[in-house]
Amino acid sequence: MAVVCLGLGFLLTLKKPKKFVFYAREGIVSVALAWILISIFGALPFVLNGDIPNFTDALFETISGFTTTGASILSDVEALSHASLFWRSFTHWVGGMGVIVFMLAIVPLTGGYSAQLMRAESPGPSFGKLVPKLKESAKILYLIYFGMTIIQILLLLLAGMPVFDALCMSFGSAGTGGFGIRNDSAASYTVLQQAILSIFMILFGVNFNFYYLLLRHDRKDAFRMDEVRCYLLIIAGAIAMITFNVRSYFGSLFLAFHHAAFQVASIITTTGFSTFDFDTWPTFSKGILMFLMFCGACAGSTGGGIKVSRVLILFRSMRLQIREFLHPKAVSTLQFDGKPLDKHTIKSTSVYLSTYTFLFILSVFVLTIDPRWDFMTDFTAVTATFNNIGPGLAEVGPSCNYGGLSILSKYVLMFDMLAGRLELYPMLITLVPSVWKRT
Amino acid sequence: MAVVCLGLGFLLTLKKPKKFVFYAREGIVSVALAWILISIFGALPFVLNGDIPNFTDALFETISGFTTTGASILSDVEALSHASLFWRSFTHWVGGMGVIVFMLAIVPLTGGYSAQLMRAESPGPSFGKLVPKLKESAKILYLIYFGMTIIQILLLLLAGMPVFDALCMSFGSAGTGGFGIRNDSAASYTVLQQAILSIFMILFGVNFNFYYLLLRHDRKDAFRMDEVRCYLLIIAGAIAMITFNVRSYFGSLFLAFHHAAFQVASIITTTGFSTFDFDTWPTFSKGILMFLMFCGACAGSTGGGIKVSRVLILFRSMRLQIREFLHPKAVSTLQFDGKPLDKHTIKSTSVYLSTYTFLFILSVFVLTIDPRWDFMTDFTAVTATFNNIGPGLAEVGPSCNYGGLSILSKYVLMFDMLAGRLELYPMLITLVPSVWKRT
Repeated sequence: MAVVCLGLGFLLTLKKPKKFVFYAREGIVSVALAWILISIFGALPFVLNGDIPNFTDALFETISGFTTTGASILSDVEALSHASLFWRSFTHWVGGMGVIVFMLAIVPLTGGYSAQLMRAESPGPSFGKLVPKLKESAKILYLIYFGMTIIQILLLLLAGMPVFDALCMSFGSAGTGGFGIRNDSAASYTVLQQAILSIFMILFGVNFNFYYLLLRHDRKDAFRMDEVRCYLLIIAGAIAMITFNVRSYFGSLFLAFHHAAFQVASIITTTGFSTFDFDTWPTFSKGILMFLMFCGACAGSTGGGIKVSRVLILFRSMRLQIREFLHPKAVSTLQFDGKPLDKHTIKSTSVYLSTYTFLFILSVFVLTIDPRWDFMTDFTAVTATFNNIGPGLAEVGPSCNYGGLSILSKYVLMFDMLAGRLELYPMLITLVPSVWKRT
Repeated sequence: MAVVCLGLGFLLTLKKPKKFVFYAREGIVSVALAWILISIFGALPFVLNGDIPNFTDALFETISGFTTTGASILSDVEALSHASLFWRSFTHWVGGMGVIVFMLAIVPLTGGYSAQLMRAESPGPSFGKLVPKLKESAKILYLIYFGMTIIQILLLLLAGMPVFDALCMSFGSAGTGGFGIRNDSAASYTVLQQAILSIFMILFGVNFNFYYLLLRHDRKDAFRMDEVRCYLLIIAGAIAMITFNVRSYFGSLFLAFHHAAFQVASIITTTGFSTFDFDTWPTFSKGILMFLMFCGACAGSTGGGIKVSRVLILFRSMRLQIREFLHPKAVSTLQFDGKPLDKHTIKSTSVYLSTYTFLFILSVFVLTIDPRWDFMTDFTAVTATFNNIGPGLAEVGPSCNYGGLSILSKYVLMFDMLAGRLELYPMLITLVPSVWKRT
């Protein structure tokens, strides 16, 4: 039964890329609808084979899978059938694939980092020209994605991981999803296996244009990418600070570094695997992880969150504002990758932050209606789903799950997962009544 | 002794308005320095009369006073001398006065609501023209501020409040500060006295241009002010929702409404008085109060926070972005008060939000270094000081105080209070090294 649905789901997946080609209002709406539809169909295997009999829960799990979030309503994943476990992890991989192409097309619109790939061909966000090139670029990106997954599987196998685990964990890190197949997520794997996971999570959080440039032997341009450099710098800084902060929790400084690195990689790439219940760590480390949750990975990767490039643009526009105060008559521009950034991108990045904040607050609000949870849990539940991470802190920490939520809260979080994954606007536009009147 | 310092402090206060007249880089920096200096001198009475022997604590209390925050390091204010209590409350009133004029000059720069008063004379932010008019406008605004304070004192006296209480509580609500003179803040006053406080807090959170327009018999323009209408709407909505949510906490629906109204008025205007420990309220109500903490009062009032006008502009720019997706070729503009808003204001409002977020996150970070407090407390401590409210939730809730903080945390929060009060940039610019090299 699960296999039939898997096939059906697969067919739908194959159909999806076609829908990315419109790029008018209808295009944006159909992207949102495609993700919703694919999730509804994807939930059927869980319901039909009885692993998750409740449809809402199954839908939550599937949306969490396709959006590469990794938030689970299950308290005991080891009780699932192997087919269900495989399907759960496979949705991450498929979702990640969809996202990479989607990012190329939609991110320039919403003020992310416009893809180098595209930029070379058509400067600025002119979508008419983008579309025909999309198929070609998509093929290259898919090959990179596919190749990296294969390498990870092989390395994990070499490190002695069972085949089923290696497959599922690789799907989970490639899509930066985070569904594990063990109740303790990644805690019971060996240090070497965990280290491989750490490294590949970080690699899948890099902007895929970086790899494209490397493939073209264009090392100079690749390493000049501000976003990638900033991303690696944030990772290094966060690991150093957390290692120092949690050194007393572990037997050796190396182990502290190892677990800090795993957690930082898992959170900044919005994967959500864990080797340790970081909810028990000191406030300072939790504060850093919280920042990483919002920051997220690079645009053009499978990771979620606000994206490093946006954070960078916002930070630089702040610096620019201060400079304008100091030298009101000097003409200053915002530089990115060594070139001045166009005004459209700066504006839409700022508006993105407003929209993000607005949706975030609204979601927390609706969650507070359920009186059983405290504010901190509501806050981190939205943080973890909206940024497509998976586990949050407090009641939805790494050792807990989303099963205890009210149905209303579950649907809000499903919306958040989709909205976060699709860069907000497709889901928002789908809610605008006038869109439905005219189509 | 306290009286001497009071006189000295007073002299300094009288000197302050002069500094507002520069409006170049030096002007902005001197505003920041003036506030810091006045706070250092203002702290002396507390140290000298022995009420707060520790200088850091005294400085915290004074900055909290002048910035009209109302966050206290004292656990027992009733033990203070009357002179100290009066000085504490009086700093609120003086601070509020400084802020009203400051807002007129600096808010248009940082993307707030440019004052109607000024706008009539000089469209857009051209500061050369603004300065000569400033004295005239300041006089009118001071008269309104003074008049409203007198009316409030008289009404509180009529409602049977002791003279000293009436004076201090009026200073506290006029500046939207929040220092009370009783340990239970405003809980032990009668319902009538509390109701008067509620109403006046709301009135002092209104944009003062509204009153100016009313004085000019320009009712149409006054009631057309988007910000004021939105402000009142938010208050009404918040009161209704909280009343419904906490109805079981009180004997009657009226009392629930009364306390909900008081708390909403106190929090949205960033005053910080309380009649009830709202930290014990259900999560939904706390969520609403949390939103109000960030939203804040109107620009051009004594209230803090992000300001209703900015929230409104950010919300509308989000709506505009969605409209642009739907109709890419249509030319749409952002309307405010029935007129199109210039691009400069929209841009700087967005940058303001980025700067705000950045400073906020950084402050929470530094606070998390102190391991004794949990993340929720650090988060709300910054929320309460950065938005100039006073009490937060959890360990810094209405029934607690800031006395237990580490020295580092106290200085960070002092910076936050000043930065929040001075619309971020003056304090930030003061930290730029190049500013100090050339002067």
